Amino acid sequence: MRVAVIGASGYTGLELLRILSRHAQFEVCVATSEQRAGAPVGEVFPSLRDIAKLDFEANDPDSIASRVDLAFTALPHSASAATVLALRRAGVRVVDLSADFRLRDVGIYRAWYGDHPAPQLIETAVYGLPELYRERLADTGLVAVPGCYPTSALLPLVPLLRQGLVATDGIVIDSKSGVSGAGRKLDEQFLFAELDDNCFAYKVGNQHRHVPEIEQEASFAAGSDISVTFVPHLLPTIRGIATSIYLRPNSPMTTEDAHRVLEEAYADERFVRVLPAGQTPRLASVRGSNFCDVAAYCDTRTNTLILLSALDNLVKGASGGAVQSANVMCGYPEETALLEAPLVP
Amino acid sequence: MRVAVIGASGYTGLELLRILSRHAQFEVCVATSEQRAGAPVGEVFPSLRDIAKLDFEANDPDSIASRVDLAFTALPHSASAATVLALRRAGVRVVDLSADFRLRDVGIYRAWYGDHPAPQLIETAVYGLPELYRERLADTGLVAVPGCYPTSALLPLVPLLRQGLVATDGIVIDSKSGVSGAGRKLDEQFLFAELDDNCFAYKVGNQHRHVPEIEQEASFAAGSDISVTFVPHLLPTIRGIATSIYLRPNSPMTTEDAHRVLEEAYADERFVRVLPAGQTPRLASVRGSNFCDVAAYCDTRTNTLILLSALDNLVKGASGGAVQSANVMCGYPEETALLEAPLVP
Amino acid sequence: MRVAVIGASGYTGLELLRILSRHAQFEVCVATSEQRAGAPVGEVFPSLRDIAKLDFEANDPDSIASRVDLAFTALPHSASAATVLALRRAGVRVVDLSADFRLRDVGIYRAWYGDHPAPQLIETAVYGLPELYRERLADTGLVAVPGCYPTSALLPLVPLLRQGLVATDGIVIDSKSGVSGAGRKLDEQFLFAELDDNCFAYKVGNQHRHVPEIEQEASFAAGSDISVTFVPHLLPTIRGIATSIYLRPNSPMTTEDAHRVLEEAYADERFVRVLPAGQTPRLASVRGSNFCDVAAYCDTRTNTLILLSALDNLVKGASGGAVQSANVMCGYPEETALLEAPLVP
Amino acid sequence: MRVAVIGASGYTGLELLRILSRHAQFEVCVATSEQRAGAPVGEVFPSLRDIAKLDFEANDPDSIASRVDLAFTALPHSASAATVLALRRAGVRVVDLSADFRLRDVGIYRAWYGDHPAPQLIETAVYGLPELYRERLADTGLVAVPGCYPTSALLPLVPLLRQGLVATDGIVIDSKSGVSGAGRKLDEQFLFAELDDNCFAYKVGNQHRHVPEIEQEASFAAGSDISVTFVPHLLPTIRGIATSIYLRPNSPMTTEDAHRVLEEAYADERFVRVLPAGQTPRLASVRGSNFCDVAAYCDTRTNTLILLSALDNLVKGASGGAVQSANVMCGYPEETALLEAPLVP
Repeated sequence: MRVAVIGASGYTGLELLRILSRHAQFEVCVATSEQRAGAPVGEVFPSLRDIAKLDFEANDPDSIASRVDLAFTALPHSASAATVLALRRAGVRVVDLSADFRLRDVGIYRAWYGDHPAPQLIETAVYGLPELYRERLADTGLVAVPGCYPTSALLPLVPLLRQGLVATDGIVIDSKSGVSGAGRKLDEQFLFAELDDNCFAYKVGNQHRHVPEIEQEASFAAGSDISVTFVPHLLPTIRGIATSIYLRPNSPMTTEDAHRVLEEAYADERFVRVLPAGQTPRLASVRGSNFCDVAAYCDTRTNTLILLSALDNLVKGASGGAVQSANVMCGYPEETALLEAPLVP
Repeated sequence: MRVAVIGASGYTGLELLRILSRHAQFEVCVATSEQRAGAPVGEVFPSLRDIAKLDFEANDPDSIASRVDLAFTALPHSASAATVLALRRAGVRVVDLSADFRLRDVGIYRAWYGDHPAPQLIETAVYGLPELYRERLADTGLVAVPGCYPTSALLPLVPLLRQGLVATDGIVIDSKSGVSGAGRKLDEQFLFAELDDNCFAYKVGNQHRHVPEIEQEASFAAGSDISVTFVPHLLPTIRGIATSIYLRPNSPMTTEDAHRVLEEAYADERFVRVLPAGQTPRLASVRGSNFCDVAAYCDTRTNTLILLSALDNLVKGASGGAVQSANVMCGYPEETALLEAPLVP
Repeated sequence: MRVAVIGASGYTGLELLRILSRHAQFEVCVATSEQRAGAPVGEVFPSLRDIAKLDFEANDPDSIASRVDLAFTALPHSASAATVLALRRAGVRVVDLSADFRLRDVGIYRAWYGDHPAPQLIETAVYGLPELYRERLADTGLVAVPGCYPTSALLPLVPLLRQGLVATDGIVIDSKSGVSGAGRKLDEQFLFAELDDNCFAYKVGNQHRHVPEIEQEASFAAGSDISVTFVPHLLPTIRGIATSIYLRPNSPMTTEDAHRVLEEAYADERFVRVLPAGQTPRLASVRGSNFCDVAAYCDTRTNTLILLSALDNLVKGASGGAVQSANVMCGYPEETALLEAPLVP
Repeated sequence: MRVAVIGASGYTGLELLRILSRHAQFEVCVATSEQRAGAPVGEVFPSLRDIAKLDFEANDPDSIASRVDLAFTALPHSASAATVLALRRAGVRVVDLSADFRLRDVGIYRAWYGDHPAPQLIETAVYGLPELYRERLADTGLVAVPGCYPTSALLPLVPLLRQGLVATDGIVIDSKSGVSGAGRKLDEQFLFAELDDNCFAYKVGNQHRHVPEIEQEASFAAGSDISVTFVPHLLPTIRGIATSIYLRPNSPMTTEDAHRVLEEAYADERFVRVLPAGQTPRLASVRGSNFCDVAAYCDTRTNTLILLSALDNLVKGASGGAVQSANVMCGYPEETALLEAPLVP
């Protein structure tokens, strides 16, 4: 199957090229970059020298549509929707890594992102978490790849919410993310000299664009409207999101009870690993892989349930999740190109 | 004033030697290390070459008592209490960095640490947070230096609790710490190859020994018994603790309201910096210094108050705090040897 | 083909398990660890949970010999030779990652490592650099995997030496290595708190055990005895060796001349990438991969040729190189399981 | 004494503010930043909140000259010379951290930096290494603070050259530097996600602007023209330069011989620590301090002398060295504000 990676010079684009280089069914024929159009991929990314053997080109959706069956779009929001619209019109299947088709309610989208260039496509898009929407993904032509923080929060959270085991108010989500989640942005605070040996909260409270996305999916799972308190923190790591979620069980719950809920929910899932009680998810244990490790603890003294997760924001939290959804959409084994063991140490 | 550092070959001991090397009133005459007795300090710690010009000796409290006026004890718990007892009997003032005299209730101490060799001294000890106990510190001969996590949690938390502005149940404390908080321990998980680019929760729920200490002081501040949910996380940094605390205000509160409470509480404090609204505390901004930076945010949608703090666990969270209390106890200006600017970048 | 990894709980053993998990021909049936015998691999290494599905067992060469066709031995030197001897007697092919069969001259081995338990095997072993010894590897039953520093030094150096283009005296090799090269050793200097933001030379001059190995192979390439000045440095990175080599050309040489030599030598090699003139090898560009990037510069003012290389010490410098040699020895495509793209960022 | 820091919003400017905050004789009255003029220093640099209590202003040399006795200029080259000229005309003493007055030969300056706005001042400037030029510094009004790499190379090298003990050709200098040496530049390769776990050579051979500076001072020391081979490498650390220098002794030399030369040269120096034989300089041991640690080794097999040094590029390699020279120039004790112990761990 012929594939395009549109917006391939950012970190999620690079990660797509890395993952797809070992995909037996998807052959990357097009990689776009406005700034580096004309340059060989292996020159821009020395790591891909002798691996990715094509040249970057400018993004021309019509031309691309005639050459590929499937496109991964990794463009900034709004720019992405415009390209997706052109590709879909031409019948190309699309896996969109931007935020443009994640939110069901275009009003909420506008409040957080501004105007939407293709609102008519929103209802055709399926939220790209196969663990939640596998069947619908098999039937769609447009996947909206979830944000990295939402993936890390929803995988441990949804099973509890679906079963109505926890209070739907007072949910606190404290996430810690490596810096690649911000992309390849030239922002002073992302300089090595600023971030090394540092850590801090940012966009505290209701400020991060992933808040409405988490709330949408949490509300779907619970069957009622949920607001969460979300505080992201920046870590001095390249990759990884570690999320700690604090909730109140509706009735007394033990650590074993909580683990059982997770284990049952994910018994047949290849990429969600429920750790044995007593182990905590570690960023290093998922580095470079498509796994999301989860665990649960109950502090019965304070009646607080603590859910923990760890994933690689560029793999399960972005490009790996995108390939996983693409595999489902295209009917290939879901784990194709995604079973690579984590890079440890 | 002649001073001993007992247990000087761990990280808090080394940090005491670093800080005291610039103290005009305290002259370090004794530094003990069982393993390195006889070796010059500057040989064991090349950083102190040409700075600390004495030799390590074995810990002999009676001999030391005859030679110094003040001792900093940085020994493991229980071992510390035994040495403190001998020193206090000989009339030496003591600043103890172990956990032995932090907990008022010896039963709680025993539950978490085991037998206590000198319970009779507990009531004579003053908890070494000058911001809370300055007057009593000026009158004591024994300071119990707080744990690093408790300091990072209590400084932002106490003003709100004292004024009864927040619910005393459901308090969640999510802390992220650099690895030096664990001391110089040869544990596999503290190896560079294991911790670099990693992050994880540990001792989740009611497992960390700092839980009863936080609860004791929080309860004192609130005037009622408080249980907290405390989850520490390990960061790939050498120094620093960033703490995020989640609470419910008793009545509607804005970010400005919360900031005002902190600003009033710390208006005259030299080492607690209340950041302007919108800034968040960063580990880098306090690195190597005795400052604790704090900030508050209210998420009015979810009625959640978020308190944030950052400090250097080896300075304000241990050895710097110890020197600050010693200054108060001995009648020197509280900031002596502690005004060093943070090491940034 | 049934395969054993003997000594699988160190970093090179873990890396073998990681790489072999994607090998279509080699099936790992045995993984040994004395300390962790009986424990599931996925419990000891959470990263391999759901990937490596066997239990560690104790090292029993006779039992193992009856169950496998090929063994990777990743034991300490001397222990390794004893196990290799038993395996070879039973007809098992062996790829040995220890130092035991790298040195042709048992006298030199004894001077650096002590007694050798199986000197009779030395001459049957082939040095596991397929770029130098491909034909002989295809014919052997025992591969001696090179040390990580030697690989990083020899790949850029040998083509120049073979052609007699540089002086054979005065060669300086300045290497910088990530800490995983030292294995999973509980040594204080490898703690995160000691190594982060640090860098230093160690075993300066003629002190590192890789010196005689580099000299042996450099001498073979030059056809005359060579002594080198080798200074290793420790980097605050998990993986990677960056080596800078300084030599005197025998006659005036330009950067282009030197590049041409490397390009011709490695035109048909899959895992040695000669970078375009002007680019320098970077650790990040080879992270997690089997590539060794090389480049050359001539400073004509000082008549000094500078050779640069970068590799991942656990992949091309150890376990990846081992699998590459095993592929050659067993007649599989040399790149099997080794074409994974580097993990960037 | 009233002091200005001109160009105070870069890393060397920030470091000057940090160091001068503990200087008893120098009071910083002016801090300039074009971009941040009007903003309080403590707002731009949260680490200096409550420490540096002035506002940034724009650089107006005439106005500044009327308000201070001494100025530290930390501007880009060429811009610096223009400001220095105005300040010197007004009689203000100047310590210049740019490259503008380091090179004695304006022709060499032009070849590497372009036009020079104030060549007439060059001969009045003294190279700010008190270890080499103490007497002349006491008599000057203009100090040219050395580059960070030159300081790290010259301190170990000059004693050997002055005594004619080593060959003056074939000198190789392999340096490894933390990223703060590049300043606060928004360059992609300095992003955390690019530099963490990375290391690479850059400006290999005769490309770095510090080459002519090293050669000038090495030639002065040797009394003859010297060309060196200099290869800088970037490290994943914030601070620090570790330099390894390779030379040929003119006659057989032992490690002890070489150490004796260094010890005699630096017996009375406060900031150069000659380590005991067998220890190697470590970046961590000088972090945040004005020390330069040095050591020597002789590899008698290859007749190669290896000199090693470690310093903090922002302290001894820039702002600390600047204050040291200013102390000498102004007649204050040379170590004023510079005896702070290194920040370890």
